Amino acid sequence: MNLLLLEDADFIAADRVVLRDRRLKHMQEVHRSEVGDSLRVGRVGGLLGSAELLRLEPREAELSVAFDREPPAKLPLTLVLALPRPKMLRRVFQTIATMGVPKVILVNSYRVEKSFWQTPFLEPAAIREQLILGLEQARDSVLPEIVIEKRFKPFVEDRLPAITDGTLGLIGHPGDFPACPRSVEQPVTLAIGPEGGWIPYEVELLRASGLNPVQLGERILRVETAVTALLSRLF
Amino acid sequence: MNLLLLEDADFIAADRVVLRDRRLKHMQEVHRSEVGDSLRVGRVGGLLGSAELLRLEPREAELSVAFDREPPAKLPLTLVLALPRPKMLRRVFQTIATMGVPKVILVNSYRVEKSFWQTPFLEPAAIREQLILGLEQARDSVLPEIVIEKRFKPFVEDRLPAITDGTLGLIGHPGDFPACPRSVEQPVTLAIGPEGGWIPYEVELLRASGLNPVQLGERILRVETAVTALLSRLF
Repeated sequence: MNLLLLEDADFIAADRVVLRDRRLKHMQEVHRSEVGDSLRVGRVGGLLGSAELLRLEPREAELSVAFDREPPAKLPLTLVLALPRPKMLRRVFQTIATMGVPKVILVNSYRVEKSFWQTPFLEPAAIREQLILGLEQARDSVLPEIVIEKRFKPFVEDRLPAITDGTLGLIGHPGDFPACPRSVEQPVTLAIGPEGGWIPYEVELLRASGLNPVQLGERILRVETAVTALLSRLF
Repeated sequence: MNLLLLEDADFIAADRVVLRDRRLKHMQEVHRSEVGDSLRVGRVGGLLGSAELLRLEPREAELSVAFDREPPAKLPLTLVLALPRPKMLRRVFQTIATMGVPKVILVNSYRVEKSFWQTPFLEPAAIREQLILGLEQARDSVLPEIVIEKRFKPFVEDRLPAITDGTLGLIGHPGDFPACPRSVEQPVTLAIGPEGGWIPYEVELLRASGLNPVQLGERILRVETAVTALLSRLF
């Protein structure tokens, strides 16, 4: 936790918060904070700043807070992601929040097991929990937008073209394709497939909506690793 | 498992193997293999090739195998890594094997908790298990070398200069440093710190041994994410 992220409900005055949950425990057990300590804070959806620890008791802490700077910029990116398996999904949410992805659209794919859509990790509160952990890691305060588009074909045919318009449209896809470009200047729409990859029919639909396959070499990466590797190379 | 990795003990003849362990289970339950199926295989430390499934019984499978091609090239890199926390360590071993890192040197750092060195995940069999998972993911057959140098100062002062010699020496380190270079041509020695980063004294010792700090932007990445992001940018 490199940043203490504050929710509206934490505020007891414009410049004062009280914490009682895992953030209190983290201050006590990991940071071993003491009264008078200064901490980096952010307000969810708002600015970053600093806090002073005024009072630390076993069950609550009170801090005075001041916000004075913008969070780091997001990447100019929309990420279209085939739903990963549940265990991976949680880490992917953290990773995309940490890396500064502003918008992720989760889609179905032929190789996504149907049962993955039943995972409790797709519930809004569970998604938010992982995103917050990713933001705390990166020292960012703005939640990425997560959109669920369970039906691949209507999404790709009817809504993806408007998203891709004016962006560099890419499909991360192992095979005999051009290498993923480096350090691009324009906004990107990037589609990353499931374990085992998109099937040819899906690649054709994505192509028809303005996305073209690019590859990162012959090594097959796990989804979480592929997300980081592609973003690090593109931006 | 994108590649079935075979150990010497699996061979009952030069072109014949019998499997009874998690790989058999994976063939049965995930791949749902049938007699006659062709599978991608590799021999640990050797070549890649293909196999034909000759016999599939509840407790063992027999395959004929032929090896005909080199595994993918490794990165021209030595990675010096402050020991991550145990849970992270396992995933890092997988990631470095998947990404093609040929050699990792695990070192101590002021911010590495002493208890991390007691983890069973540092035992050779446990390390090998994670590396094999990473190789199976990437379709590689050559295990990375993992070296444990628990004492930071003697390693950095006495042995690191010979490793760094003739390479581009870099420290992945958040802060006011040059941006990490992209697409480098020469071999690299890269040091990645613990959560919380190297302390200034450690950075000075690394600098004196020929490594210079570079950064990836203001976002603080988890160790596993930082490894992938730095390698993807460098190579």
